[in-house]
Amino acid sequence: MSKRKKITVVGAGFTGATAAFLAAQKELGDIVLVDIPQAENPTKGKALDMAEAGPVLGFDANIIGTSDYAETADSDVVIITAGIARKPGMSRDDLVQTNQKVMKSVTKEVVKYSPNTTIIVLTNPVDAMTYTVYKESGFPKERVIGQSGVLDTARFRTFVAQELNLSVKDVTGFVLGGHGDDMVPLVRYSYAGGIPLEKLIPQDRLEAIVARTRTGGGEIVNLLGNGSAYYAPAASLVEMAEAILKDQRRVLPSIAYLEGEYGFEGIYLGVPTVLGANGIEQIIELDLTEGEKAALSKSVESVKAVMQVLQ
Amino acid sequence: MSKRKKITVVGAGFTGATAAFLAAQKELGDIVLVDIPQAENPTKGKALDMAEAGPVLGFDANIIGTSDYAETADSDVVIITAGIARKPGMSRDDLVQTNQKVMKSVTKEVVKYSPNTTIIVLTNPVDAMTYTVYKESGFPKERVIGQSGVLDTARFRTFVAQELNLSVKDVTGFVLGGHGDDMVPLVRYSYAGGIPLEKLIPQDRLEAIVARTRTGGGEIVNLLGNGSAYYAPAASLVEMAEAILKDQRRVLPSIAYLEGEYGFEGIYLGVPTVLGANGIEQIIELDLTEGEKAALSKSVESVKAVMQVLQ
Amino acid sequence: MSKRKKITVVGAGFTGATAAFLAAQKELGDIVLVDIPQAENPTKGKALDMAEAGPVLGFDANIIGTSDYAETADSDVVIITAGIARKPGMSRDDLVQTNQKVMKSVTKEVVKYSPNTTIIVLTNPVDAMTYTVYKESGFPKERVIGQSGVLDTARFRTFVAQELNLSVKDVTGFVLGGHGDDMVPLVRYSYAGGIPLEKLIPQDRLEAIVARTRTGGGEIVNLLGNGSAYYAPAASLVEMAEAILKDQRRVLPSIAYLEGEYGFEGIYLGVPTVLGANGIEQIIELDLTEGEKAALSKSVESVKAVMQVLQ
Amino acid sequence: MSKRKKITVVGAGFTGATAAFLAAQKELGDIVLVDIPQAENPTKGKALDMAEAGPVLGFDANIIGTSDYAETADSDVVIITAGIARKPGMSRDDLVQTNQKVMKSVTKEVVKYSPNTTIIVLTNPVDAMTYTVYKESGFPKERVIGQSGVLDTARFRTFVAQELNLSVKDVTGFVLGGHGDDMVPLVRYSYAGGIPLEKLIPQDRLEAIVARTRTGGGEIVNLLGNGSAYYAPAASLVEMAEAILKDQRRVLPSIAYLEGEYGFEGIYLGVPTVLGANGIEQIIELDLTEGEKAALSKSVESVKAVMQVLQ
Repeated sequence: MSKRKKITVVGAGFTGATAAFLAAQKELGDIVLVDIPQAENPTKGKALDMAEAGPVLGFDANIIGTSDYAETADSDVVIITAGIARKPGMSRDDLVQTNQKVMKSVTKEVVKYSPNTTIIVLTNPVDAMTYTVYKESGFPKERVIGQSGVLDTARFRTFVAQELNLSVKDVTGFVLGGHGDDMVPLVRYSYAGGIPLEKLIPQDRLEAIVARTRTGGGEIVNLLGNGSAYYAPAASLVEMAEAILKDQRRVLPSIAYLEGEYGFEGIYLGVPTVLGANGIEQIIELDLTEGEKAALSKSVESVKAVMQVLQ
Repeated sequence: MSKRKKITVVGAGFTGATAAFLAAQKELGDIVLVDIPQAENPTKGKALDMAEAGPVLGFDANIIGTSDYAETADSDVVIITAGIARKPGMSRDDLVQTNQKVMKSVTKEVVKYSPNTTIIVLTNPVDAMTYTVYKESGFPKERVIGQSGVLDTARFRTFVAQELNLSVKDVTGFVLGGHGDDMVPLVRYSYAGGIPLEKLIPQDRLEAIVARTRTGGGEIVNLLGNGSAYYAPAASLVEMAEAILKDQRRVLPSIAYLEGEYGFEGIYLGVPTVLGANGIEQIIELDLTEGEKAALSKSVESVKAVMQVLQ
Repeated sequence: MSKRKKITVVGAGFTGATAAFLAAQKELGDIVLVDIPQAENPTKGKALDMAEAGPVLGFDANIIGTSDYAETADSDVVIITAGIARKPGMSRDDLVQTNQKVMKSVTKEVVKYSPNTTIIVLTNPVDAMTYTVYKESGFPKERVIGQSGVLDTARFRTFVAQELNLSVKDVTGFVLGGHGDDMVPLVRYSYAGGIPLEKLIPQDRLEAIVARTRTGGGEIVNLLGNGSAYYAPAASLVEMAEAILKDQRRVLPSIAYLEGEYGFEGIYLGVPTVLGANGIEQIIELDLTEGEKAALSKSVESVKAVMQVLQ
Repeated sequence: MSKRKKITVVGAGFTGATAAFLAAQKELGDIVLVDIPQAENPTKGKALDMAEAGPVLGFDANIIGTSDYAETADSDVVIITAGIARKPGMSRDDLVQTNQKVMKSVTKEVVKYSPNTTIIVLTNPVDAMTYTVYKESGFPKERVIGQSGVLDTARFRTFVAQELNLSVKDVTGFVLGGHGDDMVPLVRYSYAGGIPLEKLIPQDRLEAIVARTRTGGGEIVNLLGNGSAYYAPAASLVEMAEAILKDQRRVLPSIAYLEGEYGFEGIYLGVPTVLGANGIEQIIELDLTEGEKAALSKSVESVKAVMQVLQ
């Protein structure tokens, strides 16, 4: 018998809801959108609205909204988007500690009902939050993964495609390290139609694109005025989930737990990985230039500084 | 030379934004999301966020946000979602007159830059608003169309599929008349796998499903607590747009201008239509039972009552 | 861990190869195309050619060609297209007995390596061949299914859509009974946009369409001059397989084993079914008119006459 | 009004038919499959069989088979697959001259009915045949394009993905020059997940993969025993057509007419190009190593030797 796959999305905010909708559109499996009891009705409302789009868009997927983790039982993949965003006046430490609590409580519930699942974490600060979920879950490291590089490279690719007026399908990008400011872009591994970007774009324009990518999340926050990006983050989560659910062995940047790779130990960091049925099936190690090594170390310092705040 | 198609979505709220995103995912053409100058930045932010999902989801579409209708020039299809929702304490007449003003001003701009486009209207009360756009545009009737039946039948199909535990792909529904309370469901033209629903679902359950469909919009509003449905409405708009853009000659329920069909004249009403390159290419007339005729007349009275309020 | 699904297609002729290719395009799982040892090289060649289309069409699927059934182990679905076509001068009985031998030998191998799979049979005469596979497999009846109705209705829908100049997406058809000449079309359950075809197409034209559908396979044979249809048959097989692999609970016509349904016992016959993870999850029974009952009985007689020839 | 696009495929053999089917599946537009009068019936048969798959696969496309070029009028893109394959005992010069005649006669008809179309040529020897079509058509060079590099890189990508056990989605390849033996692979511009293949695959394995790619067409011919590859060639043609029809500005290798680029003049050769609404919108020039330059010159000599045979 050929069981349907099941995807749980924790957190029914814009990113979580959009991820649920994209997963349904791709018929990756049945979808459970879960949020706290106080948000149960809106969560049910969003799930119902999505389900009602099914006949029109032609997808078959059971989509439910709930605050009861029992409904998430036996999920193949769990995506965690829960948590708060940093508000004006809130210290970084407050943000970290608040979201750490959320991660702990969410992870407890997830693990209770889906002990064999693979978890993908989006919540910020994502390196530390992925670490928190890893510790709390007791899962092997390959089944707890953070998202940042797929999104960062998506933004980079968009800007490059616009710069060159080319299809995004033929532009690739490559990043290491933390999210946002701590991102270490490897422009020499980024291409349009296979041609290194350095041959196609003047150095100053390329630097401007890298700078824009670093602050790509902030650019959207500033434009929206209220809230942050969710379309591209949701798409990134779903690409990672699809790679795992379909055992695609995609080469995608993930936040992975390092045990010596790239010279680091006991830390979650953005590195190139192979994603398949077992979660992170491989971490790909690259020779770095001295400049890249330095940038990566700086990125690691940032991540460690956040981890200090964890309780 | 093979020009890209162009779709303008007026109103960058949830429904408008989701419609833009779905149209981009389907690579229907380039997308212009347009809103008022005060909302220009968030509109740009949403468009940019969507564009950044393109490399991940694998779609090629230029998506821009703007408040300048010059950017909408030569659109193949224009979807209008602009306008306000009824707020507590607001009279129906206030709603109608406010949205009428919005329709007039939007239509003026749309027509100025895309004199040959086809317009699809979502704004409520949709029958009267479609009429307003028709009058203001000076367009032939087949190029001004309202959406309600695709959404109503999508909800009906979802509920039936859940009732019978069957794929939504094999369930169809059929409605005439106005949106929501005024909807005239033709259950005898509704099927699962081609089998009339009346043979598969007990009468009382079928009536409950019809009743739930009538109030399907309100059900979502109540669950959300704040705001209304947007996934299924957006999907409905995009299905109609796709039928026109690809000249598919789909048989879909549309709000069409009647000139004698079904015995009515000079009114926009939900009827079965054929949608293709020319917009509404045909209105399909059906023999109605006496009961259906009566229900349709009642629906017409409701629409006319709203039209009285138009200025 | 999220295992990839696996689909085996037995018979690497045009229909089998096209079914394999369509299943790969839909990323339904990994594909094993299997044929007799004498055809091993061409089978490998076709599989390799398909795999080489993967990077361009953007699908991930391992596709292999083989003559070794060990490679089919643990398939979720097995599609059987093997067997010979009737050649000029060959008696029907010779055809039946030759293909019966093929079915027996294929089934033995399939069952040996995939004892829990679901089998879909295309080989003609399909009712008797499905029965043969059922008996030989020892499988429960719901896991041995024949294809004919999806293809017959696809042809009917195509002709109706052309007649009315409407999208095939909005046209449905409905058949009972055997394949081809023995087909019992239920035109009263066939629609365009939900409207019964009898209201849209004059009776004589409708009869002409039914007659053309009955001989739809022969029409293609005559045009091709050499060989028979394979695009639409392959698409039909893959739709059934997808319904099972994704547990969609589609309402599709299947050749199912009857134990009293429609008044027949111990015979495989085309009836409306629900296809899901368990194979045929339900046979839907309909009230028939006297004329329909008579036509169905005639169809049953034809099937029984062929079954007499089985050894 | 939003006209449907139209694609003509000349030659209804396996590659032509498969290209037509893939274009229909993607709903790129209406399809005309055209062949010589003697093959008119099989061509009609294949087109009808494909059309009958439409309701099942869910695509809307008129597909017709014909021998009358009047039916191809106003095509947006024309794909030429017509011509003979080299048979045992046939000299290369005979092949060239036979297919040259076919190209001339086909081009005359195509141009007569679609003077503004863009033509993509597959027929071998493809460099010389594309040149023939260019001369005969009188079209600007950007609207006559040959296919070889998309297919060659597809094969290369398949072999690399198998070698590394990674998704084909993340593997890219890069070739210059002629097809097959004359192919100039630029392995340094080929990647898995953005990482140069030279860092991932030992040199000898990489050379074996390159050698296998060079003879990739022959590998399939040998396996099939009778006939040549068509799935991957058809997919390659359709990817190029889609780039043009949707104005995607894809970076794809094409056989383009050189007027000084790469140091060559008046010759069709495989180079990286940008494909969009205007056909070849740009030829991308790269600095080559001395070894690459020598290999490319050798490739040019081969093409010129074939062009000598043109009459």
